Amino acid sequence: MTDGAEGLFITLEGGEGAGKSTQVARLKALIEKRGHKCIATREPGGAPGAEMIRKLLVEGPAERWDGVTEALLHFAARREHLRTTVLPALAAGTWVVSDRFADSTMAYQGYGHGIDRAMLGELYDIAVGDFRPDLTLILDLPVETGLKRAAERRGNETRYESLPREFHERVRQGFLDIAEADPARCTVIDATAGIDDIARAIEAALDRHLEA
Amino acid sequence: MTDGAEGLFITLEGGEGAGKSTQVARLKALIEKRGHKCIATREPGGAPGAEMIRKLLVEGPAERWDGVTEALLHFAARREHLRTTVLPALAAGTWVVSDRFADSTMAYQGYGHGIDRAMLGELYDIAVGDFRPDLTLILDLPVETGLKRAAERRGNETRYESLPREFHERVRQGFLDIAEADPARCTVIDATAGIDDIARAIEAALDRHLEA
Repeated sequence: MTDGAEGLFITLEGGEGAGKSTQVARLKALIEKRGHKCIATREPGGAPGAEMIRKLLVEGPAERWDGVTEALLHFAARREHLRTTVLPALAAGTWVVSDRFADSTMAYQGYGHGIDRAMLGELYDIAVGDFRPDLTLILDLPVETGLKRAAERRGNETRYESLPREFHERVRQGFLDIAEADPARCTVIDATAGIDDIARAIEAALDRHLEA
Repeated sequence: MTDGAEGLFITLEGGEGAGKSTQVARLKALIEKRGHKCIATREPGGAPGAEMIRKLLVEGPAERWDGVTEALLHFAARREHLRTTVLPALAAGTWVVSDRFADSTMAYQGYGHGIDRAMLGELYDIAVGDFRPDLTLILDLPVETGLKRAAERRGNETRYESLPREFHERVRQGFLDIAEADPARCTVIDATAGIDDIARAIEAALDRHLEA
């Protein structure tokens, strides 16, 4: 990038246990090594208001949020994230690498929970507008492998991990459908590989994007 | 209402200091005196998840929510309120009287903060669908009178009261426009009158609705 140019917005997507947070850190280090400023962020969250909404999403009322409410909350958090973290960084020439973005809402709420996908598209237009990531890396691996890895990690936020295997299969297929429908933005990365191999595949995808 | 009939959903709307909560209590008592079960509720809030979102709306991040985020959060809370409080009550034949509903989002976010009104209509369709209140009572009074009353009350939640007078004028006009556009549902009540007179005007509006 030349001086004064906007930063690139790169999102990492994928199911549980795909290794997204590791690769976000690796990608940030690579981008910095290439001489760009870069911040790593995540969704839901990545901004003070968005983290407050994340807490609400994770904790929720005893009877749980329904899928549409959950989608509204995700897009409210996303708007805060964009408005106060992502867009100001990009405008200042800083690259932004985000652990999850809108494709996760489409995959989890749309494909996983069966929330109307056209409606999720409308919410995107309302909350985000025309803005899109420059590059989206979809870390793909079999559901069984991902859930096993996620269980070993034993995080506190296991809302999705406790859902049935069929749910995770729909989410995986959702991500693959999204990638197929938007090949200029999305690259599917084989996340069964080792950490270094995945990082190399991501670097290759970034180079292909920059050359395009 | 005959046995097994659905309850009526009645909303009270209006600016700061219009006396809505007093009249909600009076209307609930009237409905119960007439032999119906009735619950009083409020927005944002009125259900466990919705009260969590209310807290977020009132507290918010240091830099404040922007208007679109605020609208998304209001509609998320509204959906929870409907889903877990209002609709189950109505289905059981219980009447529901709510201190504020969607007209407040249109008046405050749409007219007051200038958020795109067509977009707020789309959010209504997404979060609420075809459901509408049976009767909406808009308590109208001059902005100055309302703000003076609200200041005397000295509540903790003064987010809106601190906004400029012009904001409140736009909100008032918004409620009046809403009433004019939907006269079958909305009745404007002169809220400069005394508590008993307002209660009588509300009773008259209810009777007109029941006879229609």
